[in-house]
Amino acid sequence: MSDRSDGFSCPVPLADRSTVLLGHGSGGKLSAELVRDVFLPAFRHPALAALNDQAIVRVNGSRVAFTTDSFVVKPLFFPGGDIGTLAVHGTINDLAMGGAQPLFLSVALIIEEGLPMDDLRRVVASLQQSAERAGVGIVTGDTKVVEKGSGDGLFITTSGIGLVPDGVDLSADRARPGDAVLLSGTLGDHGITILGQREGLRFDGAMASDSAALHTLVADLLAVGTGFRCFRDPTRGGLASTLNEIAAQSGVAIELDEAQLPIRDEVRGACELLGLDPLYVANEGKLVALVDPAMADRALETMRAHPLGRQAVRVGTVQATARGPIVTMRTPFGTTRIVDMLAGDQLPRIC
Amino acid sequence: MSDRSDGFSCPVPLADRSTVLLGHGSGGKLSAELVRDVFLPAFRHPALAALNDQAIVRVNGSRVAFTTDSFVVKPLFFPGGDIGTLAVHGTINDLAMGGAQPLFLSVALIIEEGLPMDDLRRVVASLQQSAERAGVGIVTGDTKVVEKGSGDGLFITTSGIGLVPDGVDLSADRARPGDAVLLSGTLGDHGITILGQREGLRFDGAMASDSAALHTLVADLLAVGTGFRCFRDPTRGGLASTLNEIAAQSGVAIELDEAQLPIRDEVRGACELLGLDPLYVANEGKLVALVDPAMADRALETMRAHPLGRQAVRVGTVQATARGPIVTMRTPFGTTRIVDMLAGDQLPRIC
Repeated sequence: MSDRSDGFSCPVPLADRSTVLLGHGSGGKLSAELVRDVFLPAFRHPALAALNDQAIVRVNGSRVAFTTDSFVVKPLFFPGGDIGTLAVHGTINDLAMGGAQPLFLSVALIIEEGLPMDDLRRVVASLQQSAERAGVGIVTGDTKVVEKGSGDGLFITTSGIGLVPDGVDLSADRARPGDAVLLSGTLGDHGITILGQREGLRFDGAMASDSAALHTLVADLLAVGTGFRCFRDPTRGGLASTLNEIAAQSGVAIELDEAQLPIRDEVRGACELLGLDPLYVANEGKLVALVDPAMADRALETMRAHPLGRQAVRVGTVQATARGPIVTMRTPFGTTRIVDMLAGDQLPRIC
Repeated sequence: MSDRSDGFSCPVPLADRSTVLLGHGSGGKLSAELVRDVFLPAFRHPALAALNDQAIVRVNGSRVAFTTDSFVVKPLFFPGGDIGTLAVHGTINDLAMGGAQPLFLSVALIIEEGLPMDDLRRVVASLQQSAERAGVGIVTGDTKVVEKGSGDGLFITTSGIGLVPDGVDLSADRARPGDAVLLSGTLGDHGITILGQREGLRFDGAMASDSAALHTLVADLLAVGTGFRCFRDPTRGGLASTLNEIAAQSGVAIELDEAQLPIRDEVRGACELLGLDPLYVANEGKLVALVDPAMADRALETMRAHPLGRQAVRVGTVQATARGPIVTMRTPFGTTRIVDMLAGDQLPRIC
């Protein structure tokens, strides 16, 4: 892992762009480059150009949120969930980040020949249970099987549709100077759990993925008032990449307060051991909310009253920028450092 | 290929059900078994249980069609299209088979590390061009990259949403004795083209995939009148598997007239050479319509007036059955044979 884990401090040479690299799936700089250079010039639809986690489209007068995600996590089963729970939660979260009430999911499986049938049954049960618990229906699906060696056990692509209530208007280009940046809980739990499984790490405490469906937390927040600019779940590329995306799309600076960042001791320890920065490690059940400063305290209280937001904190502030979009972090020593997007491929196959 | 190509006459031993086999992705008997034994008991939503190519769900009062399909075709590029055109057309067709007007698509890519960037650009251009031509928007997407050896170039999962007009009610359980079975054109073009590419076959004529978006053909038919029971596009598993599914869901018998089946000489020749039955070979731009006999002639005329239905024919009739659902075929010699579902895996990675 050492070559990959420090990828963010050692970017891929600019010249090598003739093939797709692992880093193109990192959620960081190379992913953004792929979107900018290959996808956006071809796919010119305005809903896609908005670069949110979901498209919001009109269907017969209703505002419908529509999203898709492929899941290639390795291993398939891990403490706190499996590829099935991850797929359902991830897709629900992408809908919820647009303020939508998640309604229906589709599930497409690409299975490598030879997958144990019991593994498939277990994942299918997880898919259904996590959908049921979240109150959404899995209504359509597809299965393909590829030859042994042409896949890797199981890949799942879930898509989802949801309904955006009237008056809700969330987008990564709506952040304004003064906005508070709220985070619903600890950073890096999912990424470090997966990495721990893969590398056979032993943790002192019990580490588990934070995989969870965030739509009820979002609904609670939206019920409180209108000052919300943007919700995001910081998955691939971590909090750093998510905030960089928001900063870029809104044309603002975001300053984080390092002392406020909630990070478990086990995650901090594993990150130190592996040379990782928890700001870049994936989360699968955390919400970042950018909110009008007048609403910040109430929003924080509302988060803390929800089971998935008990450790919510205000981690930063949006600022005006004269030098272009940027994310910085004030350290406990009083210095400030730049928090760039993830470069390279820190943790492949994390979701 | 010989072991696989005669799979349908040599079913997989019943005992071996502990792992997923290539045949589970065939669209035939093993696929149906997987759906019946693994998916349906877990995913209990009524929209899924209807076993159509799409779910029709209510969103804020509107009837919305929702569908998903993964594409793992090999090779990625072939005469008549590529994995991108196939994905767009396939998803549009799944919406259209429910009578829906296709509106929006999502595209999720699972890329194997090392895919030439030019191949990716070419597929992305195909995705966009075929969507544009069909008048649908690609509005959201996702990209994952897996390590070399953990995938096979590129897999694409497209999902789609569409709007079902009032009064349209198509479903595979609506076939009734007396209904006419109409087919919009020749059988097996897609499957034989892919197989030809893979096996390096040379054809006398120019063979190309029939990959096409069928939604305007469906719209023309629906504009003619209300006698339509069910539309299907006979992809994996071919016409035989599609008709067996309809027979099972409607509890009817279907009799085909072999003399009427439109099959290109090149396809017939390749099938003979390889021991394949064109009834089981995949199509990607053909429509099967089950229709009230009083409407059959008008429907056939309407098909023939559309560029994608010029060779449309009536290929069979729905009959009552006392012995349970069955598909049979009257041969030119006056005999009748049973046309079973595809068993095993005739042509893996065909779509």
